[in-house]
Amino acid sequence: MADAAFQRCINPACGAEFDCGQAIFKCPQCGDLLDAQYDWDRVAVPDKLSEFGKRWATRDRRLDLSGVWRFRELLDFCPDEHKVTIGEGQTILQQNCAIAEHLGMKPDALHLQYEGLNPSGSFKDNGMTAAFSHAMMVGATSCACASTGNTSASVALYAHSCGLKCTVFIGSGRIAFGKLSQAMDYGAQTIQIAGDFDDCMRQVQAVCTELGLYLLNSLNPFRLEGQKTIMYRIIEALGWEAPDWIVVPGGNLGNSSAFGKAFLELKQLGLIDRVPRLAIVNATGADTLTDLVNNKKLVWNGGNVDQRIIDDYYADLTARHFSPHTCASAIEISRPVNLKKCLRAIDVCDGVVLAVTDEEICDAKALIGKYGLGCEPASAATIAGLKHLLARGTVAKDDRVACVLTGHALKDPNVTVNYHKDRLGEFSNAPIEVPNDLAEIIKLIR
Amino acid sequence: MADAAFQRCINPACGAEFDCGQAIFKCPQCGDLLDAQYDWDRVAVPDKLSEFGKRWATRDRRLDLSGVWRFRELLDFCPDEHKVTIGEGQTILQQNCAIAEHLGMKPDALHLQYEGLNPSGSFKDNGMTAAFSHAMMVGATSCACASTGNTSASVALYAHSCGLKCTVFIGSGRIAFGKLSQAMDYGAQTIQIAGDFDDCMRQVQAVCTELGLYLLNSLNPFRLEGQKTIMYRIIEALGWEAPDWIVVPGGNLGNSSAFGKAFLELKQLGLIDRVPRLAIVNATGADTLTDLVNNKKLVWNGGNVDQRIIDDYYADLTARHFSPHTCASAIEISRPVNLKKCLRAIDVCDGVVLAVTDEEICDAKALIGKYGLGCEPASAATIAGLKHLLARGTVAKDDRVACVLTGHALKDPNVTVNYHKDRLGEFSNAPIEVPNDLAEIIKLIR
Repeated sequence: MADAAFQRCINPACGAEFDCGQAIFKCPQCGDLLDAQYDWDRVAVPDKLSEFGKRWATRDRRLDLSGVWRFRELLDFCPDEHKVTIGEGQTILQQNCAIAEHLGMKPDALHLQYEGLNPSGSFKDNGMTAAFSHAMMVGATSCACASTGNTSASVALYAHSCGLKCTVFIGSGRIAFGKLSQAMDYGAQTIQIAGDFDDCMRQVQAVCTELGLYLLNSLNPFRLEGQKTIMYRIIEALGWEAPDWIVVPGGNLGNSSAFGKAFLELKQLGLIDRVPRLAIVNATGADTLTDLVNNKKLVWNGGNVDQRIIDDYYADLTARHFSPHTCASAIEISRPVNLKKCLRAIDVCDGVVLAVTDEEICDAKALIGKYGLGCEPASAATIAGLKHLLARGTVAKDDRVACVLTGHALKDPNVTVNYHKDRLGEFSNAPIEVPNDLAEIIKLIR
Repeated sequence: MADAAFQRCINPACGAEFDCGQAIFKCPQCGDLLDAQYDWDRVAVPDKLSEFGKRWATRDRRLDLSGVWRFRELLDFCPDEHKVTIGEGQTILQQNCAIAEHLGMKPDALHLQYEGLNPSGSFKDNGMTAAFSHAMMVGATSCACASTGNTSASVALYAHSCGLKCTVFIGSGRIAFGKLSQAMDYGAQTIQIAGDFDDCMRQVQAVCTELGLYLLNSLNPFRLEGQKTIMYRIIEALGWEAPDWIVVPGGNLGNSSAFGKAFLELKQLGLIDRVPRLAIVNATGADTLTDLVNNKKLVWNGGNVDQRIIDDYYADLTARHFSPHTCASAIEISRPVNLKKCLRAIDVCDGVVLAVTDEEICDAKALIGKYGLGCEPASAATIAGLKHLLARGTVAKDDRVACVLTGHALKDPNVTVNYHKDRLGEFSNAPIEVPNDLAEIIKLIR
């Protein structure tokens, strides 16, 4: 049924449509973002979401094993024979009473969706399984991406499993150590550009156009289709009910865009009764979205986004030679590619946007380690943001909240070790050195 | 039915038995290792292994979700109310045609069981869920372990989820960076002893005895009960058939011991027809098992192990001030705690033992990265060892082989980055630095 899918320009003044059999990711007519869209009447979507859960029983089938393709009718842009999977999306929503209590919430109200348990260690695998399926569908033979780290790891992993030649662009200096190790480990050609992420983003688009490489940044709308499934899994874990709030870190804004689209579609399909609210959390050192939405009053406005506000804002960034800076390298982005789609998500989900400091991120990260499975710094922006939203009363103490922890605790060990060893925060837990002597050791433990 | 379980000394000349309601892990009568044993007539083990697979359909039940407790009748030492789970064992056997072909094997013959996808990033979680269940059953309030890193991460994680006070002992210097970050992140008291792993191991046993802490090293027989389930999952993924070979890294030898016990029991219960062969791979810098088995001819001998061979060997290590050394820190152990149980596993599984160099480990690790999901150095000893066994003809090209990859690729990013950046081996893949200039970039990719 994959022929029920097409791409459409998100700008309603343009609205150009294209079939999915080509690798075009920006509207050739107006330059705006494209969206995967479906003629739902022609897709065999089950009547009830719970039907998807039954596929756990048939997980010896390749596509039912995948936490993405288990929901394949909801992202039906690609025939089954082209679908790529490496067993992504085996991630589980976990209730965390200890952190809930620490935040003053009702103990059963807080849930963490730890996407670090994906094969490459981050949520990106949800998107890549979908984008690489599209790449196979259009006959791509080589691919590229720009990355703060997680994307490069995921792209490199899927590229070798599909047999695609792969080049990843990273900025100089600002990449977490674990992530750099992955790009090399997974055998991608790794090109380190003298510049930041935004420079990489510009160059990769030019290179892909010039050399005909398949582009895997979140500009790619098929990635976002895969990322929708994070929401399906959260709903599944809550007995096919939407929570009151989804909290997500905001970087390139692919996740928030995908989540908004997921809920919009589920609502349109009559598969959920109500849409959860969305909270998107920036780091204060990379808070373009927060500034644009909260201060410049940028809104979706039915797709008629006021482009001048964005242009002026970016011109000012350029004039100031602004480079974003946060310890949460995964969200160290000042020109978010999916900005407009994210505005739509905020509209659909009655969303809020806020920014938290690096200190708050590091303390929240330590809290998630102390009482949970840990996460990378960017993921911890969720709990740091939730703390503010609770204090403001935006989120109620008994609201059911799901925070998306986007990356593995081991992605960025330096931040963790520094925080603890150098006693940088409230939860620092430095190791104690002791001679090889029983009496000395016992003195420490008593 | 947990009262059908008991502990028994593995020394047949002693054979003392104890109930499972106490925290004793060494025979109080002869000092030898203890084993969890079951009165199988009193345990409701299903007639067919495939019955366990049906629990995928009921995974909204806490114990059915766990990849360990899904098989609970096969490790039935603990009432359900004490069972601890954090969703461990969601790991999948993956066929890897590319590495098979690289090794000259039949393409469908090679499978990798990547235990790095456990919550703490290593196979240890399989054991800890079982051991912490026992800790809860005996009413423990505090616990400790010595660790080359993976154990400390897993213990710290389970301890906070059970509310136990936790102390982990690490050696100085020889701990992988990612692993150190986890011990601190998960909130354990981390004590770094001036010494190597063997020193830590001695001290933790003394401290636990002195202060009544629950001991979580692989001396603990209940950990091994949990580790048996890695084999159940492999068999499950192969349609409930045993492979021809299991290949596993050899460090403290808990895994090989557990795997041998798993197959012995499955055979006794009539749940499998034949037992796979077991290959245990040391690093040459920590090859006690290889030396004892291949050169000193140490054997299980129905449990009557020649203790003098071991004592002489260890006395010589002491006299030489020998300290093991390998880049594969997880198996940098010269006095393996589970040596005797491992000899039994070798006996049960017609096992072989060999050692591989650090260079071979690093090249194999890069191969697993290039064509698989990656792994930590110790895990790669499996593929390095398999290469030797194929060359010798011990393993045939069409034998069905399952290699156990014990730890996550991100556990030890330093080894990865050094191998690639410093071009240390056959598969090194260094990043290329380039100015922020399109023409320069395109020149590199063409």
